[in-house]
Amino acid sequence: MKKKNKKVNAAILIIGNEILSGRTQDKNVAFISNWLNSKCGISVDEVRIIPDVEKIIVQNILLLSRKFNYVFTTGGIGPTHDDITAQSISKAFKVKYEFHQEAYDILEKYYGKRKFNDGRKKMAKMPRGSKLIYNPSSAAPGFLTENVFSLPGVPSILNSMIENCKGFLSKGLKVHSKTISLYTVESNISKKLGQIQKKYKNFVEIGSYPFFRLGKIGVAIVTRSTSLIKLKKVNSELRQLVKIKKIKILKV
Amino acid sequence: MKKKNKKVNAAILIIGNEILSGRTQDKNVAFISNWLNSKCGISVDEVRIIPDVEKIIVQNILLLSRKFNYVFTTGGIGPTHDDITAQSISKAFKVKYEFHQEAYDILEKYYGKRKFNDGRKKMAKMPRGSKLIYNPSSAAPGFLTENVFSLPGVPSILNSMIENCKGFLSKGLKVHSKTISLYTVESNISKKLGQIQKKYKNFVEIGSYPFFRLGKIGVAIVTRSTSLIKLKKVNSELRQLVKIKKIKILKV
Repeated sequence: MKKKNKKVNAAILIIGNEILSGRTQDKNVAFISNWLNSKCGISVDEVRIIPDVEKIIVQNILLLSRKFNYVFTTGGIGPTHDDITAQSISKAFKVKYEFHQEAYDILEKYYGKRKFNDGRKKMAKMPRGSKLIYNPSSAAPGFLTENVFSLPGVPSILNSMIENCKGFLSKGLKVHSKTISLYTVESNISKKLGQIQKKYKNFVEIGSYPFFRLGKIGVAIVTRSTSLIKLKKVNSELRQLVKIKKIKILKV
Repeated sequence: MKKKNKKVNAAILIIGNEILSGRTQDKNVAFISNWLNSKCGISVDEVRIIPDVEKIIVQNILLLSRKFNYVFTTGGIGPTHDDITAQSISKAFKVKYEFHQEAYDILEKYYGKRKFNDGRKKMAKMPRGSKLIYNPSSAAPGFLTENVFSLPGVPSILNSMIENCKGFLSKGLKVHSKTISLYTVESNISKKLGQIQKKYKNFVEIGSYPFFRLGKIGVAIVTRSTSLIKLKKVNSELRQLVKIKKIKILKV
């Protein structure tokens, strides 16, 4: 990983009718976002879920790849007719959709010559000039085209590949985060919380999230900042608020 | 619900830093999409997850509300400073952000006059002319502005409110769906599957999704169509393919 002096952001593009229709519960957004945040200092600023339609994929790839430092796509890189991510990215960047020799060799070795059929060969076709993202669990590689990382949709396979994206990423400023969980209701602290947020608005992001745990109602206050000093200042103000209001703390 | 003769679509706009950062796993997309599909014949054609930033919310509301028949937003309608959905939608549609008398009355009654503080009052403010979506679990209503339904982010509360959207929706053509789960690998059937999809491409959507169950690898073939007759034709072709290839069926 290179550099480390600026904010770096990313978008995630989930490609798949099965997620849009509600048939399959997406788990890749939370996983990729957590990994980018914690391991690379990269924040995910937008997510889109779109159908397996070439025109729509092309439009979104073009738009998101210009708007964000990186784009991560999931889904659509398997052997069947509805897997059209690679050919769509080729169209978006106007490069040839062709066999990648190293990917071809990896897959041929994995399946053996006799079982390396057309469906499997399809997984070696990608946009010209793509770099491979190796797949330790099922061989078929992902690929990096311009600033777009294409990964598979199956979470266990994606999870096994994500570390192989790291070498291609510029590291951003680490975002520090702190959570205080309180036994109170949001409206009890909303006014003061708004004032604290206003005071630190350019430095610290304060989120407030109600929860229900063991039959009790509470609020998790999440603070996030690239400045550890500012984050500590906000949290000491939060602790003072908690003290004044006599709120019970569940977890700091 | 009215009508029932055309395709009706929707977009979902998830508003919330906690989803983008990966801190919270979204569950609302699958729930809303399943409900719209099965109960209303409405298909979700795009989902976006965006941060709690007014300018970004305004842009997305304008764009999605023009592009799709309906938009469902989740999140950002609570009592704290980071809950800015209502004011952002007001800006998008250039209408006043003000107290909704009925919402105010509902909340005042629920909390009692003494405990009806400013944070709670904020939940009665919405875009002028909005219609209420009643909330049987925690009183604070959602609202419908133009073709945009605004619902809370907490899944249990959202789930309890969704039926109250029904009266405002035009019903679309029901999409029938059938799943065959097979003990095979995608590449074994991908060629023939592609041919069947090509033959029925304007009528039936065929999806192929690998799964791992009890240590075995399989593929779920999902077919979807507004025409039950076409769907049956495709499925009889699929069963023939399964027979020829001597594939074991797990579940039809």
